[in-house]
Amino acid sequence: MEKSKKPVILVTNDDGYRAKGLHALIEAIQPFGHVVVVAPTQAQSGMSHAITVNVPLRMDKIEEKDGLEFYVVSGTPTDCVKLANNQLFKDIKPDLLVSGINHGANSSASVVYSGTMAAAIEGCLYEIPSIGFSLLDFSRAPDFSAAVKFIRQIVKNALENGIETDTCLNVNIPKLPYDQIKGVRICRQNKGVWREEFDKRLDPNNREYYWLTGEFYNLEPHADDTDEWALHHGYISIVPVQVDMTAYSSIGQLRQWTWNN
Amino acid sequence: MEKSKKPVILVTNDDGYRAKGLHALIEAIQPFGHVVVVAPTQAQSGMSHAITVNVPLRMDKIEEKDGLEFYVVSGTPTDCVKLANNQLFKDIKPDLLVSGINHGANSSASVVYSGTMAAAIEGCLYEIPSIGFSLLDFSRAPDFSAAVKFIRQIVKNALENGIETDTCLNVNIPKLPYDQIKGVRICRQNKGVWREEFDKRLDPNNREYYWLTGEFYNLEPHADDTDEWALHHGYISIVPVQVDMTAYSSIGQLRQWTWNN
Repeated sequence: MEKSKKPVILVTNDDGYRAKGLHALIEAIQPFGHVVVVAPTQAQSGMSHAITVNVPLRMDKIEEKDGLEFYVVSGTPTDCVKLANNQLFKDIKPDLLVSGINHGANSSASVVYSGTMAAAIEGCLYEIPSIGFSLLDFSRAPDFSAAVKFIRQIVKNALENGIETDTCLNVNIPKLPYDQIKGVRICRQNKGVWREEFDKRLDPNNREYYWLTGEFYNLEPHADDTDEWALHHGYISIVPVQVDMTAYSSIGQLRQWTWNN
Repeated sequence: MEKSKKPVILVTNDDGYRAKGLHALIEAIQPFGHVVVVAPTQAQSGMSHAITVNVPLRMDKIEEKDGLEFYVVSGTPTDCVKLANNQLFKDIKPDLLVSGINHGANSSASVVYSGTMAAAIEGCLYEIPSIGFSLLDFSRAPDFSAAVKFIRQIVKNALENGIETDTCLNVNIPKLPYDQIKGVRICRQNKGVWREEFDKRLDPNNREYYWLTGEFYNLEPHADDTDEWALHHGYISIVPVQVDMTAYSSIGQLRQWTWNN
Protein backbone atom coordinates (compact mmCIF):
# COMPACT_ATOMS: atom_id res chain seq x y z
CA MET A 1 0.00 0.00 0.00
CA GLU A 2 1.43 3.36 -1.01
CA LYS A 3 1.13 6.41 1.13
CA SER A 4 -1.49 8.71 -0.32
CA LYS A 5 -1.70 12.41 0.49
CA LYS A 6 -5.00 11.95 2.27
CA PRO A 7 -4.84 10.38 5.74
CA VAL A 8 -5.03 6.59 5.72
CA ILE A 9 -7.49 5.32 8.29
CA LEU A 10 -7.62 1.70 9.48
CA VAL A 11 -11.05 0.60 10.66
CA THR A 12 -11.95 -2.51 12.63
CA ASN A 13 -14.51 -3.67 15.17
CA ASP A 14 -15.48 -6.63 17.34
CA ASP A 15 -19.07 -7.21 16.25
CA GLY A 16 -18.00 -8.55 12.85
CA TYR A 17 -17.87 -7.10 9.37
CA ARG A 18 -21.63 -7.03 8.86
CA ALA A 19 -22.43 -5.11 12.05
CA LYS A 20 -24.31 -1.87 11.51
CA GLY A 21 -21.96 -0.10 13.92
CA LEU A 22 -18.99 -0.80 11.66
CA HIS A 23 -20.79 0.59 8.64
CA ALA A 24 -21.84 3.69 10.61
CA LEU A 25 -18.19 4.21 11.56
CA ILE A 26 -17.10 3.87 7.93
CA GLU A 27 -19.74 6.44 6.98
CA ALA A 28 -18.44 8.76 9.71
CA ILE A 29 -14.79 8.63 8.73
CA GLN A 30 -14.88 8.36 4.92
CA PRO A 31 -14.76 12.15 4.46
CA PHE A 32 -11.38 12.24 6.25
CA GLY A 33 -9.27 10.03 4.02
CA HIS A 34 -8.52 6.66 2.46
CA VAL A 35 -10.28 3.99 4.49
CA VAL A 36 -8.96 0.44 4.95
CA VAL A 37 -11.40 -1.81 6.79
CA VAL A 38 -10.06 -5.05 8.30
CA ALA A 39 -12.86 -6.60 10.34
CA PRO A 40 -13.57 -10.02 11.86
CA THR A 41 -15.66 -12.48 9.87
CA GLN A 42 -17.59 -13.46 13.00
CA ALA A 43 -18.85 -11.44 15.97
CA GLN A 44 -16.12 -11.31 18.64
CA SER A 45 -17.84 -9.73 21.61
CA GLY A 46 -16.04 -10.24 24.88
CA MET A 47 -12.89 -11.46 23.15
CA SER A 48 -10.79 -8.77 24.83
CA HIS A 49 -7.20 -8.78 23.57
CA ALA A 50 -7.30 -12.45 22.51
CA ILE A 51 -5.01 -13.54 19.70
CA THR A 52 -5.38 -16.65 17.56
CA VAL A 53 -2.44 -18.99 18.06
CA ASN A 54 -3.80 -22.51 17.58
CA VAL A 55 -5.36 -22.20 14.13
CA PRO A 56 -4.15 -20.24 11.12
CA LEU A 57 -5.90 -17.09 9.95
CA ARG A 58 -7.48 -16.21 6.62
CA MET A 59 -7.74 -12.70 5.21
CA ASP A 60 -9.89 -11.95 2.16
CA LYS A 61 -10.50 -8.71 0.33
CA ILE A 62 -14.26 -8.38 -0.20
CA GLU A 63 -14.52 -4.86 -1.63
CA GLU A 64 -12.40 -2.17 -3.25
CA LYS A 65 -13.72 1.10 -4.53
CA ASP A 66 -12.66 4.72 -4.58
CA GLY A 67 -11.30 5.59 -1.14
CA LEU A 68 -12.22 2.27 0.47
CA GLU A 69 -10.67 -1.19 0.78
CA PHE A 70 -12.51 -3.83 2.79
CA TYR A 71 -10.93 -7.03 4.16
CA VAL A 72 -12.31 -9.73 6.44
CA VAL A 73 -10.20 -11.83 8.82
CA SER A 74 -11.15 -15.16 10.42
CA GLY A 75 -9.94 -14.03 13.87
CA THR A 76 -10.22 -11.57 16.71
CA PRO A 77 -10.10 -7.76 16.58
CA THR A 78 -6.45 -7.92 17.70
CA ASP A 79 -5.69 -10.40 14.90
CA CYS A 80 -7.26 -7.92 12.45
CA VAL A 81 -5.00 -5.09 13.58
CA LYS A 82 -1.92 -7.31 13.55
CA LEU A 83 -2.64 -8.70 10.08
CA ALA A 84 -3.42 -5.24 8.72
CA ASN A 85 -0.19 -3.79 10.10
CA ASN A 86 1.97 -6.70 9.03
CA GLN A 87 0.52 -7.45 5.61
CA LEU A 88 -1.21 -4.30 4.35
CA PHE A 89 0.88 -1.57 6.01
CA LYS A 90 4.37 -2.95 5.62
CA ASP A 91 6.04 0.33 4.70
CA ILE A 92 3.70 2.96 6.02
CA LYS A 93 1.63 3.31 9.13
CA PRO A 94 -2.03 4.30 9.11
CA ASP A 95 -2.56 7.87 10.28
CA LEU A 96 -5.41 6.76 12.50
CA LEU A 97 -7.06 3.56 13.70
CA VAL A 98 -10.74 3.61 14.65
CA SER A 99 -12.60 0.67 16.15
CA GLY A 100 -16.34 0.16 16.55
CA ILE A 101 -18.93 1.50 16.71
CA ASN A 102 -19.55 -1.14 19.35
CA HIS A 103 -23.15 -2.14 19.98
CA GLY A 104 -23.10 -1.60 23.75
CA ALA A 105 -21.05 0.25 26.39
CA ASN A 106 -17.32 -0.15 26.96
CA SER A 107 -17.06 2.32 29.81
CA SER A 108 -15.53 1.74 33.24
CA ALA A 109 -13.78 -1.61 33.77
CA SER A 110 -15.30 -2.95 30.53
CA VAL A 111 -12.16 -1.69 28.86
CA VAL A 112 -10.43 -4.92 29.95
CA TYR A 113 -13.05 -7.23 28.37
CA SER A 114 -13.69 -5.23 25.23
CA GLY A 115 -12.57 -6.40 21.81
CA THR A 116 -13.30 -2.90 20.48
CA MET A 117 -10.84 -1.35 22.92
CA ALA A 118 -8.33 -4.20 22.49
CA ALA A 119 -8.08 -3.23 18.82
CA ALA A 120 -7.44 0.39 19.81
CA ILE A 121 -4.83 -0.66 22.38
CA GLU A 122 -3.18 -2.88 19.78
CA GLY A 123 -3.00 0.09 17.40
CA CYS A 124 -1.49 2.12 20.23
CA LEU A 125 1.22 -0.54 20.75
CA TYR A 126 2.12 0.05 17.09
CA GLU A 127 2.17 3.80 17.80
CA ILE A 128 -0.85 4.50 15.62
CA PRO A 129 -3.24 7.14 17.02
CA SER A 130 -6.19 4.92 17.94
CA ILE A 131 -9.76 5.41 19.13
CA GLY A 132 -12.46 2.93 20.16
CA PHE A 133 -16.10 4.04 19.82
CA SER A 134 -19.05 2.46 21.61
CA LEU A 135 -22.75 3.37 21.68
CA LEU A 136 -24.79 2.52 24.78
CA ASP A 137 -27.31 0.55 22.77
CA PHE A 138 -26.94 -3.21 22.62
CA SER A 139 -29.60 -3.74 19.95
CA ARG A 140 -28.81 -4.95 16.45
CA ALA A 141 -30.02 -1.82 14.70
CA PRO A 142 -29.42 1.21 16.92
CA ASP A 143 -29.73 4.77 15.67
CA PHE A 144 -26.12 5.76 14.99
CA SER A 145 -26.92 9.21 13.55
CA ALA A 146 -25.89 11.24 16.61
CA ALA A 147 -22.81 9.06 17.07
CA VAL A 148 -21.71 9.70 13.49
CA LYS A 149 -21.84 13.49 13.99
CA PHE A 150 -19.80 13.41 17.20
CA ILE A 151 -17.33 10.87 15.83
CA ARG A 152 -16.54 13.31 13.01
CA GLN A 153 -15.71 16.02 15.56
CA ILE A 154 -13.55 13.63 17.57
CA VAL A 155 -11.71 12.31 14.50
CA LYS A 156 -11.13 15.86 13.27
CA ASN A 157 -9.56 16.75 16.61
CA ALA A 158 -7.45 13.59 16.67
CA LEU A 159 -6.07 14.20 13.17
CA GLU A 160 -5.36 17.87 13.88
CA ASN A 161 -4.03 17.62 17.44
CA GLY A 162 -2.72 14.06 17.65
CA ILE A 163 -3.05 11.65 20.56
CA GLU A 164 -0.26 11.22 23.09
CA THR A 165 2.05 8.26 22.32
CA ASP A 166 1.29 5.05 24.24
CA THR A 167 -2.25 6.34 24.78
CA CYS A 168 -5.49 5.62 22.95
CA LEU A 169 -9.01 6.91 23.47
CA ASN A 170 -12.06 5.09 24.82
CA VAL A 171 -15.14 6.96 23.57
CA ASN A 172 -18.60 6.02 24.81
CA ILE A 173 -21.73 7.65 23.45
CA PRO A 174 -25.06 7.77 25.31
CA LYS A 175 -28.22 6.45 23.65
CA LEU A 176 -29.74 9.86 22.99
CA PRO A 177 -30.80 11.95 20.02
CA TYR A 178 -28.15 14.45 18.84
CA ASP A 179 -29.82 17.50 20.35
CA GLN A 180 -30.10 15.82 23.76
CA ILE A 181 -26.37 15.03 24.02
CA LYS A 182 -24.92 17.73 26.24
CA GLY A 183 -21.39 17.56 24.84
CA VAL A 184 -18.10 15.73 25.35
CA ARG A 185 -16.33 15.18 28.68
CA ILE A 186 -12.76 14.02 29.19
CA CYS A 187 -12.96 11.51 32.04
CA ARG A 188 -11.15 8.91 34.05
CA GLN A 189 -12.13 5.23 34.07
CA ASN A 190 -14.87 4.57 36.63
CA LYS A 191 -14.29 1.94 39.29
CA GLY A 192 -16.88 -0.82 39.13
CA VAL A 193 -17.54 -4.54 39.07
CA TRP A 194 -20.13 -6.97 37.84
CA ARG A 195 -22.36 -8.81 40.32
CA GLU A 196 -24.62 -11.88 40.17
CA GLU A 197 -22.85 -12.89 37.05
CA PHE A 198 -24.34 -16.29 36.26
CA ASP A 199 -27.70 -17.71 35.33
CA LYS A 200 -27.50 -21.35 36.47
CA ARG A 201 -29.74 -23.81 34.60
CA LEU A 202 -30.28 -27.53 34.18
CA ASP A 203 -29.91 -29.17 30.77
CA PRO A 204 -32.36 -31.90 29.58
CA ASN A 205 -30.09 -34.45 31.30
CA ASN A 206 -30.30 -32.59 34.63
CA ARG A 207 -26.72 -31.41 34.47
CA GLU A 208 -25.93 -27.85 35.52
CA TYR A 209 -24.71 -25.19 33.12
CA TYR A 210 -24.13 -21.46 33.44
CA TRP A 211 -24.86 -18.46 31.25
CA LEU A 212 -22.65 -15.46 31.86
CA THR A 213 -24.82 -12.45 32.67
CA GLY A 214 -24.73 -10.00 35.56
CA GLU A 215 -25.17 -6.37 36.35
CA PHE A 216 -22.60 -3.62 36.51
CA TYR A 217 -22.20 -2.17 39.96
CA ASN A 218 -20.76 1.35 40.15
CA LEU A 219 -18.40 1.57 43.13
CA GLU A 220 -18.17 5.38 43.01
CA PRO A 221 -21.54 6.68 41.79
CA HIS A 222 -21.01 10.17 43.20
CA ALA A 223 -17.66 10.95 41.59
CA ASP A 224 -18.30 13.45 38.79
CA ASP A 225 -15.05 12.95 36.85
CA THR A 226 -15.73 9.40 35.62
CA ASP A 227 -17.00 8.05 32.33
CA GLU A 228 -20.04 6.51 34.06
CA TRP A 229 -21.03 9.87 35.51
CA ALA A 230 -20.67 11.60 32.14
CA LEU A 231 -22.76 8.97 30.34
CA HIS A 232 -25.50 9.00 32.96
CA HIS A 233 -25.68 12.77 32.68
CA GLY A 234 -26.06 12.89 28.91
CA TYR A 235 -22.44 13.48 27.89
CA ILE A 236 -20.13 11.58 25.57
CA SER A 237 -17.20 10.27 27.64
CA ILE A 238 -13.61 10.17 26.40
CA VAL A 239 -11.14 8.31 28.61
CA PRO A 240 -7.48 8.37 27.55
CA VAL A 241 -6.20 4.79 28.04
CA GLN A 242 -2.55 3.91 28.50
CA VAL A 243 -0.81 0.67 27.60
CA ASP A 244 1.61 0.94 30.51
CA MET A 245 -0.31 -0.85 33.25
CA THR A 246 2.42 -0.40 35.88
CA ALA A 247 1.03 0.67 39.27
CA TYR A 248 3.90 3.03 40.03
CA SER A 249 2.42 3.92 43.42
CA SER A 250 2.93 0.31 44.58
CA ILE A 251 6.61 0.04 43.74
CA GLY A 252 7.82 1.57 46.99
CA GLN A 253 5.72 -0.71 49.19
CA LEU A 254 6.78 -3.82 47.28
CA ARG A 255 10.46 -2.92 47.71
CA GLN A 256 9.92 -3.31 51.48
CA TRP A 257 9.14 -7.01 51.09
CA THR A 258 11.75 -9.33 52.61
CA TRP A 259 13.59 -12.12 50.86
CA ASN A 260 15.63 -15.05 52.09
CA ASN A 261 18.38 -14.54 49.59
CA MET B 1 -17.95 -22.64 51.14
CA GLU B 2 -17.31 -21.73 54.76
CA LYS B 3 -14.45 -19.57 55.86
CA SER B 4 -11.72 -21.70 57.40
CA LYS B 5 -9.06 -20.30 59.70
CA LYS B 6 -6.32 -21.03 57.21
CA PRO B 7 -6.09 -18.70 54.22
CA VAL B 8 -8.23 -19.76 51.27
CA ILE B 9 -6.31 -19.58 48.02
CA LEU B 10 -7.95 -19.63 44.59
CA VAL B 11 -5.75 -21.07 41.85
CA THR B 12 -6.24 -20.86 38.10
CA ASN B 13 -4.19 -20.76 34.92
CA ASP B 14 -4.47 -20.40 31.15
CA ASP B 15 -2.66 -23.55 29.97
CA GLY B 16 -5.49 -25.81 31.16
CA TYR B 17 -5.99 -28.05 34.18
CA ARG B 18 -3.48 -30.67 33.12
CA ALA B 19 -0.57 -28.25 32.58
CA LYS B 20 2.51 -29.00 34.65
CA GLY B 21 2.80 -25.33 35.57
CA LEU B 22 -0.58 -25.42 37.33
CA HIS B 23 0.43 -28.46 39.35
CA ALA B 24 3.76 -26.84 40.26
CA LEU B 25 1.82 -23.80 41.49
CA ILE B 26 -0.50 -25.99 43.58
CA GLU B 27 2.57 -27.68 45.07
CA ALA B 28 4.06 -24.26 45.85
CA ILE B 29 1.03 -22.84 47.64
CA GLN B 30 -0.49 -25.87 49.41
CA PRO B 31 1.54 -25.21 52.60
CA PHE B 32 -0.16 -21.80 52.95
CA GLY B 33 -3.80 -22.75 53.22
CA HIS B 34 -6.90 -24.30 51.78
CA VAL B 35 -6.53 -24.48 48.02
CA VAL B 36 -9.42 -24.20 45.56
CA VAL B 37 -8.36 -24.83 41.97
CA VAL B 38 -10.70 -23.66 39.17
CA ALA B 39 -8.89 -24.17 35.88
CA PRO B 40 -9.88 -24.27 32.21
CA THR B 41 -10.61 -27.64 30.64
CA GLN B 42 -8.66 -26.65 27.52
CA ALA B 43 -5.49 -24.64 27.00
CA GLN B 44 -6.38 -20.94 26.67
CA SER B 45 -3.10 -19.34 25.64
CA GLY B 46 -3.48 -15.87 24.16
CA MET B 47 -7.09 -15.61 25.32
CA SER B 48 -6.35 -12.42 27.24
CA HIS B 49 -9.36 -11.20 29.24
CA ALA B 50 -11.88 -12.96 26.97
CA ILE B 51 -15.20 -13.99 28.48
CA THR B 52 -17.58 -16.60 27.12
CA VAL B 53 -20.88 -15.01 26.15
CA ASN B 54 -22.22 -17.08 23.24
CA VAL B 55 -22.18 -20.58 24.75
CA PRO B 56 -22.98 -21.68 28.30
CA LEU B 57 -20.27 -22.83 30.68
CA ARG B 58 -19.83 -26.11 32.55
CA MET B 59 -18.06 -26.49 35.87
CA ASP B 60 -17.21 -29.92 37.28
CA LYS B 61 -15.50 -30.89 40.50
CA ILE B 62 -12.83 -33.46 39.65
CA GLU B 63 -11.05 -33.85 42.99
CA GLU B 64 -11.56 -33.15 46.68
CA LYS B 65 -9.12 -34.11 49.38
CA ASP B 66 -7.71 -32.64 52.54
CA GLY B 67 -6.91 -28.99 51.86
CA LEU B 68 -7.64 -29.13 48.13
CA GLU B 69 -10.70 -28.80 45.91
CA PHE B 70 -10.25 -29.03 42.15
CA TYR B 71 -12.79 -27.82 39.56
CA VAL B 72 -12.60 -27.55 35.80
CA VAL B 73 -14.48 -24.99 33.69
CA SER B 74 -15.22 -25.15 29.96
CA GLY B 75 -14.13 -21.54 29.41
CA THR B 76 -11.41 -18.93 29.66
CA PRO B 77 -9.26 -18.01 32.69
CA THR B 78 -11.54 -15.01 33.30
CA ASP B 79 -14.59 -17.30 33.20
CA CYS B 80 -12.89 -19.50 35.80
CA VAL B 81 -12.37 -16.58 38.19
CA LYS B 82 -15.91 -15.30 37.66
CA LEU B 83 -17.50 -18.72 38.18
CA ALA B 84 -15.37 -19.38 41.26
CA ASN B 85 -16.29 -16.04 42.82
CA ASN B 86 -19.96 -16.26 41.97
CA GLN B 87 -20.65 -19.92 42.67
CA LEU B 88 -18.01 -21.16 45.12
CA PHE B 89 -17.23 -17.99 47.08
CA LYS B 90 -20.67 -16.49 47.51
CA ASP B 91 -20.24 -15.40 51.11
CA ILE B 92 -16.50 -15.17 51.57
CA LYS B 93 -13.68 -13.94 49.41
CA PRO B 94 -10.49 -15.91 48.80
CA ASP B 95 -7.53 -14.48 50.71
CA LEU B 96 -5.37 -14.77 47.63
CA LEU B 97 -5.67 -15.63 43.94
CA VAL B 98 -2.69 -17.11 42.13
CA SER B 99 -2.58 -17.80 38.40
CA GLY B 100 -0.06 -19.88 36.45
CA ILE B 101 2.61 -20.98 36.41
CA ASN B 102 2.42 -19.98 32.76
CA HIS B 103 4.61 -21.91 30.34
CA GLY B 104 6.29 -18.88 28.76
CA ALA B 105 6.92 -15.20 29.51
CA ASN B 106 4.25 -12.61 30.27
CA SER B 107 6.61 -9.69 30.72
CA SER B 108 6.42 -6.28 29.02
CA ALA B 109 3.37 -5.65 26.82
CA SER B 110 2.46 -9.36 26.98
CA VAL B 111 0.37 -8.42 29.98
CA VAL B 112 -2.39 -7.33 27.58
CA TYR B 113 -2.51 -10.68 25.71
CA SER B 114 -2.01 -12.98 28.68
CA GLY B 115 -4.77 -15.21 30.02
CA THR B 116 -2.64 -15.79 33.12
CA MET B 117 -2.57 -12.09 33.89
CA ALA B 118 -6.21 -11.59 32.89
CA ALA B 119 -7.16 -14.01 35.68
CA ALA B 120 -5.07 -11.98 38.14
CA ILE B 121 -6.60 -8.71 36.91
CA GLU B 122 -10.07 -10.24 37.25
CA GLY B 123 -9.27 -11.23 40.84
CA CYS B 124 -8.10 -7.68 41.42
CA LEU B 125 -11.42 -6.29 40.12
CA TYR B 126 -13.06 -8.41 42.86
CA GLU B 127 -10.59 -6.89 45.36
CA ILE B 128 -8.82 -10.21 45.93
CA PRO B 129 -5.02 -9.93 46.31
CA SER B 130 -3.92 -11.55 43.04
CA ILE B 131 -0.66 -12.68 41.47
CA GLY B 132 0.15 -14.13 38.04
CA PHE B 133 3.27 -16.29 37.72
CA SER B 134 5.08 -17.09 34.47
CA LEU B 135 8.27 -19.04 33.76
CA LEU B 136 10.37 -18.12 30.73
CA ASP B 137 10.24 -21.65 29.37
CA PHE B 138 7.65 -22.44 26.71
CA SER B 139 8.26 -26.22 26.75
CA ARG B 140 5.65 -28.68 28.00
CA ALA B 141 7.75 -29.99 30.87
CA PRO B 142 9.98 -27.19 32.21
CA ASP B 143 11.88 -27.46 35.49
CA PHE B 144 9.63 -25.57 37.93
CA SER B 145 11.73 -26.31 41.04
CA ALA B 146 13.36 -22.87 41.32
CA ALA B 147 10.03 -21.20 40.55
CA VAL B 148 8.32 -23.11 43.37
CA LYS B 149 10.88 -21.88 45.92
CA PHE B 150 10.56 -18.23 44.90
CA ILE B 151 6.78 -18.41 44.62
CA ARG B 152 6.64 -19.48 48.26
CA GLN B 153 8.61 -16.38 49.26
CA ILE B 154 6.40 -14.12 47.17
CA VAL B 155 3.16 -15.69 48.48
CA LYS B 156 4.42 -15.41 52.07
CA ASN B 157 5.09 -11.70 51.53
CA ALA B 158 1.72 -11.17 49.86
CA LEU B 159 -0.20 -12.84 52.70
CA GLU B 160 1.76 -10.99 55.37
CA ASN B 161 1.98 -7.54 53.77
CA GLY B 162 -1.02 -7.46 51.43
CA ILE B 163 -1.14 -6.02 47.94
CA GLU B 164 -2.46 -2.52 47.28
CA THR B 165 -6.17 -2.45 46.30
CA ASP B 166 -6.84 -2.22 42.55
CA THR B 167 -3.36 -3.63 41.92
CA CYS B 168 -2.16 -7.15 41.16
CA LEU B 169 1.30 -8.57 40.56
CA ASN B 170 2.86 -9.81 37.34
CA VAL B 171 5.72 -12.14 38.30
CA ASN B 172 8.08 -13.51 35.65
CA ILE B 173 10.78 -16.04 36.47
CA PRO B 174 13.88 -16.59 34.32
CA LYS B 175 14.73 -20.08 33.04
CA LEU B 176 17.62 -20.66 35.44
CA PRO B 177 18.52 -23.06 38.24
CA TYR B 178 17.70 -21.76 41.74
CA ASP B 179 21.28 -20.85 42.64
CA GLN B 180 21.73 -18.82 39.45
CA ILE B 181 18.70 -16.60 40.06
CA LYS B 182 20.10 -13.37 41.46
CA GLY B 183 16.99 -12.36 43.37
CA VAL B 184 13.75 -10.44 42.93
CA ARG B 185 13.39 -6.98 41.39
CA ILE B 186 10.32 -4.73 41.55
CA CYS B 187 10.03 -3.27 38.05
CA ARG B 188 7.93 -1.30 35.66
CA GLN B 189 6.42 -2.75 32.48
CA ASN B 190 8.92 -2.61 29.61
CA LYS B 191 7.89 -0.87 26.40
CA GLY B 192 8.03 -3.22 23.44
CA VAL B 193 6.23 -4.57 20.40
CA TRP B 194 6.16 -7.67 18.24
CA ARG B 195 7.54 -7.57 14.71
CA GLU B 196 7.25 -9.78 11.61
CA GLU B 197 4.26 -11.35 13.16
CA PHE B 198 2.97 -13.68 10.45
CA ASP B 199 4.15 -16.76 8.64
CA LYS B 200 2.25 -16.64 5.33
CA ARG B 201 1.67 -20.02 3.65
CA LEU B 202 -0.32 -21.56 0.83
CA ASP B 203 -2.82 -24.33 1.52
CA PRO B 204 -3.16 -27.36 -0.83
CA ASN B 205 -5.67 -25.31 -2.86
CA ASN B 206 -3.18 -22.46 -3.29
CA ARG B 207 -5.08 -20.14 -0.98
CA GLU B 208 -3.11 -18.00 1.47
CA TYR B 209 -3.26 -18.48 5.21
CA TYR B 210 -1.32 -16.95 8.10
CA TRP B 211 0.19 -18.34 11.30
CA LEU B 212 0.64 -15.82 14.06
CA THR B 213 4.29 -15.77 15.13
CA GLY B 214 6.76 -12.90 15.46
CA GLU B 215 9.55 -11.67 17.64
CA PHE B 216 9.42 -9.36 20.60
CA TYR B 217 11.28 -6.13 20.00
CA ASN B 218 12.45 -4.27 23.09
CA LEU B 219 11.99 -0.53 22.56
CA GLU B 220 14.06 0.44 25.60
CA PRO B 221 16.79 -2.21 26.00
CA HIS B 222 19.04 0.04 28.10
CA ALA B 223 16.53 1.03 30.78
CA ASP B 224 17.46 -0.90 33.94
CA ASP B 225 14.16 -0.52 35.80
CA THR B 226 12.04 -2.73 33.51
CA ASP B 227 10.92 -6.33 33.77
CA GLU B 228 12.79 -7.22 30.55
CA TRP B 229 16.04 -5.89 31.97
CA ALA B 230 15.60 -7.82 35.22
CA LEU B 231 14.83 -11.09 33.42
CA HIS B 232 17.76 -10.72 31.02
CA HIS B 233 20.06 -10.14 33.97
CA GLY B 234 19.00 -13.21 35.94
CA TYR B 235 16.41 -11.67 38.26
CA ILE B 236 12.78 -12.50 38.90
CA SER B 237 10.66 -9.49 37.88
CA ILE B 238 7.60 -8.29 39.79
CA VAL B 239 5.54 -5.57 38.10
CA PRO B 240 2.58 -4.17 40.05
CA VAL B 241 -0.28 -3.90 37.54
CA GLN B 242 -3.23 -1.57 37.98
CA VAL B 243 -6.74 -1.99 36.64
CA ASP B 244 -7.23 1.73 36.18
CA MET B 245 -5.92 2.24 32.64
CA THR B 246 -6.63 6.00 32.57
CA ALA B 247 -3.76 8.00 31.08
CA TYR B 248 -4.10 10.88 33.52
CA SER B 249 -1.27 12.78 31.84
CA SER B 250 -3.36 13.11 28.66
CA ILE B 251 -6.45 14.60 30.26
CA GLY B 252 -5.18 18.20 30.14
CA GLN B 253 -4.25 18.03 26.46
CA LEU B 254 -7.59 16.47 25.50
CA ARG B 255 -9.48 19.21 27.31
CA GLN B 256 -7.96 21.67 24.80
CA TRP B 257 -9.77 20.02 21.89
CA THR B 258 -12.47 22.15 20.29
CA TRP B 259 -16.10 21.27 19.78
CA ASN B 260 -18.82 22.71 17.62
CA ASN B 261 -21.43 22.58 20.31
